[in-house]
Amino acid sequence: MKEGVKDTPKEQLMAAIAPEVAKIEQAMHQDLNRASIDADPLLREVLEYGVFNGGKRLRPLLVVLAARICGLTEEKIRYKSIYKLAIAFEYLHGATLFHDDVIDRADLRRGKPSVNKQFGTIAAILGGDFLHSRSMFLVGTLGGTAALKIFCNATNSMVDGEFLQLRNAQNYNLSEDDYFEAVKGKTALLIAATCEVGALAGGATKLQQQALAEYGISLGTAFQIVDDLLDYQGESAKTGKAVGNDFQEGKMTLPLIIALGRASLEDRERILYLLENESERHAGFNEARGLIEKYDGFTISRNKAESIVTEAVAGLEIFSDEESKSSLAVLKALAGYVLARKK
Amino acid sequence: MKEGVKDTPKEQLMAAIAPEVAKIEQAMHQDLNRASIDADPLLREVLEYGVFNGGKRLRPLLVVLAARICGLTEEKIRYKSIYKLAIAFEYLHGATLFHDDVIDRADLRRGKPSVNKQFGTIAAILGGDFLHSRSMFLVGTLGGTAALKIFCNATNSMVDGEFLQLRNAQNYNLSEDDYFEAVKGKTALLIAATCEVGALAGGATKLQQQALAEYGISLGTAFQIVDDLLDYQGESAKTGKAVGNDFQEGKMTLPLIIALGRASLEDRERILYLLENESERHAGFNEARGLIEKYDGFTISRNKAESIVTEAVAGLEIFSDEESKSSLAVLKALAGYVLARKK
Repeated sequence: MKEGVKDTPKEQLMAAIAPEVAKIEQAMHQDLNRASIDADPLLREVLEYGVFNGGKRLRPLLVVLAARICGLTEEKIRYKSIYKLAIAFEYLHGATLFHDDVIDRADLRRGKPSVNKQFGTIAAILGGDFLHSRSMFLVGTLGGTAALKIFCNATNSMVDGEFLQLRNAQNYNLSEDDYFEAVKGKTALLIAATCEVGALAGGATKLQQQALAEYGISLGTAFQIVDDLLDYQGESAKTGKAVGNDFQEGKMTLPLIIALGRASLEDRERILYLLENESERHAGFNEARGLIEKYDGFTISRNKAESIVTEAVAGLEIFSDEESKSSLAVLKALAGYVLARKK
Repeated sequence: MKEGVKDTPKEQLMAAIAPEVAKIEQAMHQDLNRASIDADPLLREVLEYGVFNGGKRLRPLLVVLAARICGLTEEKIRYKSIYKLAIAFEYLHGATLFHDDVIDRADLRRGKPSVNKQFGTIAAILGGDFLHSRSMFLVGTLGGTAALKIFCNATNSMVDGEFLQLRNAQNYNLSEDDYFEAVKGKTALLIAATCEVGALAGGATKLQQQALAEYGISLGTAFQIVDDLLDYQGESAKTGKAVGNDFQEGKMTLPLIIALGRASLEDRERILYLLENESERHAGFNEARGLIEKYDGFTISRNKAESIVTEAVAGLEIFSDEESKSSLAVLKALAGYVLARKK
């Protein structure tokens, strides 16, 4: 990791991962080009537009780091095509975003028109299907049956988590447990899968695989909590999407659940009124945000995310040998970044 | 195959394949139940509704028949879980229908409300993703890398074929070659993949695998031509979907392309007028159908489908041994059925 007195932790992290991210981008360019070489020009354009959109590449990065911390040398990382295996997770993530933006009728994604907005529903659905299929192909051929099993399990849990969230959206009595269950399926299991598949490819012991899977679950959960916080507190200019979507769609996320649980009877009724009446949700967003603030919904959510991340990192202490040191530092820094991110 | 003087070829075929179809249905019930055992009740309901809808199960049937004609015994078919491998193709087909009905905003599927209509867009997109993922899992784990490669190649060609068709929809000068290229990607390669994956699982020689793949391409192409004919000539009560969709969406299918190529200047202009003006497409459908009829667009299309099927069947003559006889008869009968089907 690059050291420098003036660097913030974020700058240090970015400098440390920059070469990895560059290799991931390169692997995606090469693979996507090869996979779509005979394809329709519009399909190629849709994939190019949707995949190379300034994403953080967190998922493939975790695959590579997990493989490395389990002892895979640079030579073996190349030999075993770990970068190519890793990008499968970015494709799957991309496929999810393509489809989510159709479902949510979202016009913006990272500050640009969404694929759906730019190319229409057909392109977004089918382009997502293409990426989904390619991702499975890469995992199945490069990671083997065990990796494919973990991958498909995570994918289907993601679908299941979305259904659960759909069901939860109607339920204003949602508990924190319900929220965490949906988050696990919707986000955390896939992050865990990146770590597990990387661990498998790195020849991990059972104990190492499990520690990395647990790190992934915690990291993914914290990631989603911060995402849900940003939906209330983020700056559109940074997040690249509108603020207040979740409340306006009646989605029950952690800050809201916590506030509802702690509010006075009167304030609780007021929040529910704003939430239950679609006509109020838009105008009432600022008022609702104030009420969540009043009952520490944001602070308590952030504290939860922090303690989950602390736990995530503690489990990695089993990687105590000298060779693991730099990968461990990056995994720890990533956990810190997930908390601090503004977008 | 059951013999009986009173039986029509279709009844004979149905009697021959009934036990296979029953095993396929059973395998789907078992697998889907297992794959979704912890899933949200709504997701389970969506899958159940969308998958068990009276489909013909042509694709998994072809997998089993291809494995069998290559010499796989009943015992090995059970041991190698060929039925479970076969249903992957029905899942993929189901996923495609879920997504297609979102794209086409289709309300009806086999005479019932489509998944999209019944459960909404979210359920249709995500339910399709679930099936897609499960299908890849089954092929990857039961068929191995070679099968997964064929499967993903066919899936991505399907997406590509849809893009090509999208592009073609704007092009009223479309040639027959363009049409056949889109059909290959959209339909035929997947049918070929069923035969190839079955052949691989059956331990086929290169020659056998190739003959079955070519049979699949031809069968799939004929299948699509008949589909396109039914869109003009079918009876809604039998097909379970509205007639005239393709014309009303401006889709360039074979009967229309042939008629445009043969029509007098005046009639050609008239057809193009009806096609190019969205306001005319609905009211003008019967007139357009009459003009296609006048220039033998339907008859010539049907003759093409027949000669393609004849070719498909001729290539199977390499399976000349006694053990292949009954499977060969069913594959031949299926080809005949594809031509004769009314739905």
